[in-house]
Amino acid sequence: MDRIVVVLVRARNPKNIGAVARAMHDFGFRTLRIVNEYAVPFEDASSAVDASEVLASAAVFTRLADAIADCSLVVGTTAIGERLLQHPVYALPQAGEIMMHPLAGDHSGDTGRVALLFGSEKTGLSNEELSHCKWLLTIPMEQHADMRHPSMNLGQAVAVCLYELVRQAGMDLPHNFSVKSAQPASAGVAQVERLALLLNQVLEAADYKRHHPSRSEVADIRRLVMRMDVSTIDAAVWMGILRQLLWRIAQEKEIGG
Amino acid sequence: MDRIVVVLVRARNPKNIGAVARAMHDFGFRTLRIVNEYAVPFEDASSAVDASEVLASAAVFTRLADAIADCSLVVGTTAIGERLLQHPVYALPQAGEIMMHPLAGDHSGDTGRVALLFGSEKTGLSNEELSHCKWLLTIPMEQHADMRHPSMNLGQAVAVCLYELVRQAGMDLPHNFSVKSAQPASAGVAQVERLALLLNQVLEAADYKRHHPSRSEVADIRRLVMRMDVSTIDAAVWMGILRQLLWRIAQEKEIGG
Repeated sequence: MDRIVVVLVRARNPKNIGAVARAMHDFGFRTLRIVNEYAVPFEDASSAVDASEVLASAAVFTRLADAIADCSLVVGTTAIGERLLQHPVYALPQAGEIMMHPLAGDHSGDTGRVALLFGSEKTGLSNEELSHCKWLLTIPMEQHADMRHPSMNLGQAVAVCLYELVRQAGMDLPHNFSVKSAQPASAGVAQVERLALLLNQVLEAADYKRHHPSRSEVADIRRLVMRMDVSTIDAAVWMGILRQLLWRIAQEKEIGG
Repeated sequence: MDRIVVVLVRARNPKNIGAVARAMHDFGFRTLRIVNEYAVPFEDASSAVDASEVLASAAVFTRLADAIADCSLVVGTTAIGERLLQHPVYALPQAGEIMMHPLAGDHSGDTGRVALLFGSEKTGLSNEELSHCKWLLTIPMEQHADMRHPSMNLGQAVAVCLYELVRQAGMDLPHNFSVKSAQPASAGVAQVERLALLLNQVLEAADYKRHHPSRSEVADIRRLVMRMDVSTIDAAVWMGILRQLLWRIAQEKEIGG
């Protein structure tokens, strides 16, 4: 992650800068650089909850060339509009794969930093700015017939790109998150049998078996319970429920009789 | 894409709703549902550039159960904080794979709609809301030592999830997602909900809830029923059993009283 440098070129809205910083914080990226000819009061961007560290260490440049001087691979982002592109363009999944390759930008003696450029909210990256890029990345989007220039919100575009890089990096997730979280053991045969027999008693007491003889043989009931595939814990809960039902019906009978 | 229903539960900020609509527009998703107890003036959400179509057709509900009644798979999103989770949790890439499987939620005769739930900006989904979910999805994020509850900006979280679904849609079929094709169709959300509510009534009538208040909240009962993972056929059998129990207890009461 530390090899990736997020570069915002001519971002106008401090809130967007804050949203970018927050996405970087969320996904574990640290290096933010801002290229602007005039000062942007981004430090107090209101939406930058918990992103103060990223913002505090953000570097500000007036020239793009200076912001990327120490990087060995520069990738531009584009929404591909009507603009004629003179660069190779990769869709994000493939672009992420290239960028996260251990050797990406790792040229002899270089720092191996990879810059990812995002243009201004209104116009994207200019031709001059694109000319600094080795190749371009585009986020696959729905092509709407009525739109000339599909484009994403800046904070969302950065979040989606960083997510893809994290995904490519192999997801530094605690192991138990990627698989089903620990589930209690399934009830054993004996427990299932006890449950089936108790349910059978309840259905007897409730006159269910008399009303539905065709589907309340003990074997039917056993299969019904077996298909529940209960855990040991849930089996105990169901036993409690059935005992209570049995008790309740018997009690009523006593009072009623 | 049309099978996916994005559900925002208790979203507070109209700008966030606008950002969600914009991400949906960008990635080609159409169905937005908003669950809120009070009216949210989301229609003029300022950041919803080009998302007017999604917003205009958004449906508003006061109850979550109504918003997901026609869906056959309900997936909740969580940031996994300190909260104890009682659901299986998948990281986004794997969750996307399951959700975009052609058979996900596609039960015989059902619409096969898949609901993706996002909670409020501050608190996420409540336990009651999570109890409507079959399983949970989490976006892999950096664990910062100083943060108790890592969470993403709502608009960014939705954008990242939808990007993953789009990415999956363009990929090969999943290999590690087992489909229960030989088994009868699983009961849909509405059927499971009816079963849970009827069981709740029975437990009320049988005084079970009074004796075991700690484990008989409606949410507990809903989860218990959901874990049964009943087929449509067995759901009907269980409905018959529960109705008979209810009738029997009421009858005894009448005689007894």
